[in-house]
Amino acid sequence: MTEFSFSLHKTDGTARLGTVRTLHGDIRTPAFMPVGTVGTVKGLYLDQVKEAGADVILGNTYHLMLRPGAEEVAKLGGLHNFIGWDGPILTDSGGFQVMSLAKIRKITEQGAVFQSHIDGRRYELTPERAMDIQRLLGSDIQMQLDQCLEYPHTDKEAEKAMQLSLRWAARSRKAFGTQPGRGNFGIVQGGVNEGLRRASAAGLRDIGFEGYAIGGLAVGEGQKLMLQTIEFTAPELPADKPRYLMGVGTPEDLLESVARGIDMFDCVLPTRSGRHGQAFTRFGKTNLRNAKHADDPRPLDAESVCPALSKYSRAYIHHLMRSGELLGMMLLSWANIAYYQELMQGIRTAIAEDRFEEFQALTKEQWKRGEAGML
Amino acid sequence: MTEFSFSLHKTDGTARLGTVRTLHGDIRTPAFMPVGTVGTVKGLYLDQVKEAGADVILGNTYHLMLRPGAEEVAKLGGLHNFIGWDGPILTDSGGFQVMSLAKIRKITEQGAVFQSHIDGRRYELTPERAMDIQRLLGSDIQMQLDQCLEYPHTDKEAEKAMQLSLRWAARSRKAFGTQPGRGNFGIVQGGVNEGLRRASAAGLRDIGFEGYAIGGLAVGEGQKLMLQTIEFTAPELPADKPRYLMGVGTPEDLLESVARGIDMFDCVLPTRSGRHGQAFTRFGKTNLRNAKHADDPRPLDAESVCPALSKYSRAYIHHLMRSGELLGMMLLSWANIAYYQELMQGIRTAIAEDRFEEFQALTKEQWKRGEAGML
Repeated sequence: MTEFSFSLHKTDGTARLGTVRTLHGDIRTPAFMPVGTVGTVKGLYLDQVKEAGADVILGNTYHLMLRPGAEEVAKLGGLHNFIGWDGPILTDSGGFQVMSLAKIRKITEQGAVFQSHIDGRRYELTPERAMDIQRLLGSDIQMQLDQCLEYPHTDKEAEKAMQLSLRWAARSRKAFGTQPGRGNFGIVQGGVNEGLRRASAAGLRDIGFEGYAIGGLAVGEGQKLMLQTIEFTAPELPADKPRYLMGVGTPEDLLESVARGIDMFDCVLPTRSGRHGQAFTRFGKTNLRNAKHADDPRPLDAESVCPALSKYSRAYIHHLMRSGELLGMMLLSWANIAYYQELMQGIRTAIAEDRFEEFQALTKEQWKRGEAGML
Repeated sequence: MTEFSFSLHKTDGTARLGTVRTLHGDIRTPAFMPVGTVGTVKGLYLDQVKEAGADVILGNTYHLMLRPGAEEVAKLGGLHNFIGWDGPILTDSGGFQVMSLAKIRKITEQGAVFQSHIDGRRYELTPERAMDIQRLLGSDIQMQLDQCLEYPHTDKEAEKAMQLSLRWAARSRKAFGTQPGRGNFGIVQGGVNEGLRRASAAGLRDIGFEGYAIGGLAVGEGQKLMLQTIEFTAPELPADKPRYLMGVGTPEDLLESVARGIDMFDCVLPTRSGRHGQAFTRFGKTNLRNAKHADDPRPLDAESVCPALSKYSRAYIHHLMRSGELLGMMLLSWANIAYYQELMQGIRTAIAEDRFEEFQALTKEQWKRGEAGML
């Protein structure tokens, strides 16, 4: 039986190279996890996600509990079987979507009561129910329920939410029980306040988890405050466990966060922005809806192994996006997921070869210079 | 240099088995041509279209002349290069969309003047310009400009449009000139009136084309009148040239029309209905949005070679469609294109083996009985 584990292979400065082992396979870290919100990485076939180099994808507890429902997914053989993905799956706890999507919500000591954004039906999400749902889905990494705050908020609000999240962490941990090959992650909260983040991390360490996430960032505080917060939070987390920065981010955010000791990321940005015409490539970002692409016969990146980047002209993708065609959204979502994975592979190789700092500088330089300045 | 040609290999009753040879490859007939409206078969990668068994796809002159523009496509290397399809492409003349989509239109002896449905810009489409556009696109089969009528219409209106279409046919033929490996098709008009259809076919024969299309059907007249019209029109067309029934149709329409001597078809139905949840399979049609599929773990057709039909559960596709996910539309569009091609392959094999009538009966019986009555 596979035991859930994390191996830290080496560090390069504060950047870390490792492997998370789960029931459904290994996750090479630093890892970017494409988001499969309702059981699909929007606009992609899962074969494409796998081939792009992703080891793990994410599912959203909030979305899946509303539709089709956790018990229904369990009856259909669990989330892996339902969606046709045999690698690791991480599920969040639903806390973030309760804050950002639910119509009416009430947070008590017991948990969250909210109305579905789909049909207004009333649901209760407690720490125990969040774990129950994730066990029914069969996910490999299960997140504790936490209370997420909108930004900005006061320190007092942040402290209250952090303390509640800590109490929920203890209940989540108990509810998780023992699930060989699967891991349970606690979530550090506390806004951008160093004292609160330290207290949150200490509380979670006392409970003990297979991994630790940093939540409540990338909600509007800006990159500078986010990076500062990571800088004083990451050292508070056990070095022998994976560290997951939730909901982040841009390619630059990934580089900067890896440099500060983060191992795992997830974000809807590559697929969401792809659906709106934006491409992320080695040469920086560009919006394919812009008129300058209309007569450009070049692919986005002729040297990429991903067909979405190397086989379709910018003129064609521009035409598809302007025409509102599904294929335009499909291609750019695929291209972005592929570039994100290529970036993570570059990061992992650079750490292995003790040249992460150089890699970071060259990558940023390349984004800035664009194609004219191919390095 | 490849010469455009049609070989009629054999007949089985009135059904015909043949091959259309073009500059970009052969088309096995009877053939169903997926519609690539603006340069994409909606929701599919062209690799999937090819693998499903399609030899030829269709492009719409009206759409492509408005965006990106025929001259722009030519500058980008022609339609084949622009969209990444190296097989045959048939383009229509734009006549049908001028009738169905353009905002304001005026038909004169000279041609059609209309306003774009996208931005209201004014365009003129003459028989000569329609051929010019299709040459710029580089299509392998180029259709004459014709005047399409809405249904219902009077015989007098039908006659007037048919006569104008005949005069346009002569001008189209002249404008087509000589293009080795490429073919020019005339279009029979005349509503559901036998005399008008005969006169139209006779006029086109006198001009002489590489192939003949039957236009103006499947516009609301109903299947019975459509089949009657095919029955008295097809025999008027030269046996040694391909016959193309435009804009048709359902799987049953295809069977019935092949039985009446038709060789080529195109229709948006498999992709459009796929985007709305409808699947066509060996077992008939079903809408995946229906609640009955919610907990059904079976694929649409376990024995199909197409992953969209054999690898995804109905429950999952149902969930995707209810959730408004791109992947649901992608899978059902793919499944339908695959089934249409499987049907055409079945038709071709049956004609080759002199059992088309039996194949037709068994296929319809299977649609009616559904899965319970697997033959």
